[in-house]
Amino acid sequence: MQFNEIVEKLKQGQSSVVDFKIRNNPIILTAASIENAKENDISFLDNNSQLNLKNLIKTSKASALLLPADDNYIIEVAKKISIDWILLKEPKIAFAETLEFLYPSEKEKEGIHKSAVIGENVKIGPGVSIGANVFIGDNAEIGAQTVVHAGVVVYKNVSIGAQNIIHANSVIHSGSKLGDECVINANAVIGGEGFGFVPTSNGWKKMPQVGIVILKNKVEIGSGSTVDRPSVGETVIGEDTKIDNQVQVGHGVTTGRGCAMAAQVGIAGGAQIGNGVILAGQVGVSNKVKVGDRVIASSKTGIVSNIEAGKVVSGFPAIPNKLWLRCSANFKKLPEIAKAIKLLDRKNPT
Amino acid sequence: MQFNEIVEKLKQGQSSVVDFKIRNNPIILTAASIENAKENDISFLDNNSQLNLKNLIKTSKASALLLPADDNYIIEVAKKISIDWILLKEPKIAFAETLEFLYPSEKEKEGIHKSAVIGENVKIGPGVSIGANVFIGDNAEIGAQTVVHAGVVVYKNVSIGAQNIIHANSVIHSGSKLGDECVINANAVIGGEGFGFVPTSNGWKKMPQVGIVILKNKVEIGSGSTVDRPSVGETVIGEDTKIDNQVQVGHGVTTGRGCAMAAQVGIAGGAQIGNGVILAGQVGVSNKVKVGDRVIASSKTGIVSNIEAGKVVSGFPAIPNKLWLRCSANFKKLPEIAKAIKLLDRKNPT
Amino acid sequence: MQFNEIVEKLKQGQSSVVDFKIRNNPIILTAASIENAKENDISFLDNNSQLNLKNLIKTSKASALLLPADDNYIIEVAKKISIDWILLKEPKIAFAETLEFLYPSEKEKEGIHKSAVIGENVKIGPGVSIGANVFIGDNAEIGAQTVVHAGVVVYKNVSIGAQNIIHANSVIHSGSKLGDECVINANAVIGGEGFGFVPTSNGWKKMPQVGIVILKNKVEIGSGSTVDRPSVGETVIGEDTKIDNQVQVGHGVTTGRGCAMAAQVGIAGGAQIGNGVILAGQVGVSNKVKVGDRVIASSKTGIVSNIEAGKVVSGFPAIPNKLWLRCSANFKKLPEIAKAIKLLDRKNPT
Repeated sequence: MQFNEIVEKLKQGQSSVVDFKIRNNPIILTAASIENAKENDISFLDNNSQLNLKNLIKTSKASALLLPADDNYIIEVAKKISIDWILLKEPKIAFAETLEFLYPSEKEKEGIHKSAVIGENVKIGPGVSIGANVFIGDNAEIGAQTVVHAGVVVYKNVSIGAQNIIHANSVIHSGSKLGDECVINANAVIGGEGFGFVPTSNGWKKMPQVGIVILKNKVEIGSGSTVDRPSVGETVIGEDTKIDNQVQVGHGVTTGRGCAMAAQVGIAGGAQIGNGVILAGQVGVSNKVKVGDRVIASSKTGIVSNIEAGKVVSGFPAIPNKLWLRCSANFKKLPEIAKAIKLLDRKNPT
Repeated sequence: MQFNEIVEKLKQGQSSVVDFKIRNNPIILTAASIENAKENDISFLDNNSQLNLKNLIKTSKASALLLPADDNYIIEVAKKISIDWILLKEPKIAFAETLEFLYPSEKEKEGIHKSAVIGENVKIGPGVSIGANVFIGDNAEIGAQTVVHAGVVVYKNVSIGAQNIIHANSVIHSGSKLGDECVINANAVIGGEGFGFVPTSNGWKKMPQVGIVILKNKVEIGSGSTVDRPSVGETVIGEDTKIDNQVQVGHGVTTGRGCAMAAQVGIAGGAQIGNGVILAGQVGVSNKVKVGDRVIASSKTGIVSNIEAGKVVSGFPAIPNKLWLRCSANFKKLPEIAKAIKLLDRKNPT
Repeated sequence: MQFNEIVEKLKQGQSSVVDFKIRNNPIILTAASIENAKENDISFLDNNSQLNLKNLIKTSKASALLLPADDNYIIEVAKKISIDWILLKEPKIAFAETLEFLYPSEKEKEGIHKSAVIGENVKIGPGVSIGANVFIGDNAEIGAQTVVHAGVVVYKNVSIGAQNIIHANSVIHSGSKLGDECVINANAVIGGEGFGFVPTSNGWKKMPQVGIVILKNKVEIGSGSTVDRPSVGETVIGEDTKIDNQVQVGHGVTTGRGCAMAAQVGIAGGAQIGNGVILAGQVGVSNKVKVGDRVIASSKTGIVSNIEAGKVVSGFPAIPNKLWLRCSANFKKLPEIAKAIKLLDRKNPT
């Protein structure tokens, strides 16, 4: 694709083209990071890039660059280089759009592979692709254009919307309801039974888990992640919420819209997560805790009690991020502090 | 099911009916939490519920309630409402039993699906159900009434007892022995090779893992959990021990009876876990550590040395829970403490 | 196998036989830990064993022992017992080699199981074994002697080298390249899409993940582990790097040679891990962080900034291990410290 075509296409996108320079109008074949770019590559610099990254522009072998329009230093440098560029309000979005142009996703073959096993009374929409060795249980519904990759197991009475992508060997349990445009990555498990056991004098009594899991539209679930169904009622993942790999979502959890949960997050049963919440890697949320809208928790945070909307928290138990940073910095001084106390104490006898 | 039928059935269960009121004798169709209950729902309140939950009784739309017999406030309120109720010593057990009545688990179809691949010399008991695309290796034994869901892979020489439920796409490696009434949830891996490598001048030398995994009766393993086999000997999960999702059990670990391990717990090789141990989410246990009977570790605890029976521990490294609570509360004061030390120090020149 | 045969075979191995005693020349049938060994078992003691383990030699029922040549106490005891033994510089390597002699791994049947589904233009080398219900996508290459167990899904355009073992129900995504002698354990996912979303006024915009994952020779990936592909470029796991169960490797991560990562480690996108790095269980590494060669991080460490080569770190955020040990020991004193400060403060009014 020639550079000027990319300019035209980006103008119609969401990245707000501010300016551009067509000098060599190179053919752009592939995309790469600015460190690794070679001829015929397009690359980008994000807003607020660090100086060492910015200076890579001067030596980059990329044939074209997507650059932030709000960075005077970059603009200054860009004027002097012989590489074609586009200045944008949102260079990262531009890069995402460019990847879509350069690497259009291959359409999976429509139809049901002959090795797939389809239950009774299954409704399959137009344009659906069902891969090898898939099992679809009775009474399932699969919406238009949805792709079910090889080895997926869908239990009975599952409803899957349109344009979903269900990756290989993932499992969707009975009663689960998926909206449209969801992505379930490989080996994820949706709707497994919640962990509910009541202690009795004869050992654990199992609490039957007869609730269901609902994924709203545009939910993405990472590889190996698990979303449990509750004993009664619903576990709900809100629209446009993105969940990374190896995340555990306990029974009866609800999340709002537009959350992002990084890898290895664990959310215990009944927690209520607001809209736009961001949980970094290995965060834990205790059961029944309420996490307000737009809360951000940094990695390894342990949220054990309710957090108000808009807070940024860290540590275990979670405290305000800025306080935690100061406390952590002082944690290193503990041996010195302990020693000082002892010394002072000796100097101040009662 | 009519309310009076539920009363009669619970009388024969383990929840100890103390009193009940049949007034409307409603039809009970479904169960729900007290917050979400609607007409024809049955709901429950646990012992030691919080006041705001207790007050929901006054406005609940449930048609019937299972209530704790030891709570005078609840009994007082219950007398005034027009909802039918049962007072029980164990309302949570009653709710579990009621879910069993209302939602009897559907029996899977007996027989071997025609797409399943069964090895040589496999013994399959009566009433067994083997789903689509299952693979069972040579010399495996599968006990009566066990259900093997679609996509499961059982390697050679595996022994599975009676009345197990093996969920979709889980994997059971060679030599593993499962007792009766176990549940293996989707995408779990039983008997994978332990992580054993010896450093040499030529890089890592693999320690062969020729031991096996044994799950005793009534063990449950969560979705995506992994239980490794050891180099020699056995990894053993004790009877009635329940393991949640994404838990890692290292090679040669042994656990006692009736333990519960919440999601994302990791137990390193050779650790010895006693009876009735409870590990909350994201707890880690170091290799070869001994954890005594009935130890409780709160979430994210890191157990790096032996813990005596009956202790409640928290933090990393684990310390007594009550001490940890006080230490954590004071962690927040570290900047202030560090500052005070400096100030005091200045005021007390040597 | 008779004991003298084991002596002869070990002489040709890497464990450096220093001395041996053939007295009974027993038949060795199996191997066991020194605690559990019975007649006809061979067992071993590692270098630097604890005294209570060393004393087990006196009462061990093993028929033969592999012992460290550098431990005078052990040599003293060994001279007095009636068990046959071998003294070695590397008794643990000797034990690994002995397990290989005693338990030779069974060769999987060559050929493609009739239930496997093989795409178009797939190249399969000599001696390859492809199990039941496997799916191999178009244009894949599978090298000589590689074993692909039941239920594995290989997407399009994947290249797998020689002598790999791909365990059941694991998934390898498009474009991934595996070297020779790799092991992919059950339910692992190689090459899933990285977690990349850009916030926009309309919600999350997905960053296409068009890069690939490369596993060099002798890489091992644990059960349920996930290695993501990046938006552009490569995620690379270096030669002889061993990864345990439920480890998450984010998009664009690179690791050097000979690393070991224990269970439930999480490495965020773009982190650069050096050679010979050892990460213990549940360690987290933040995105884009550089971890130098031979760094060791103890369990639950959170590495949030670059670590120089050779350092041993602990805690969150990571600090030098020795400092962390002292700080942790003093963490327990925080209530006392806080109290002391208050007391002292009162005694020193300004």
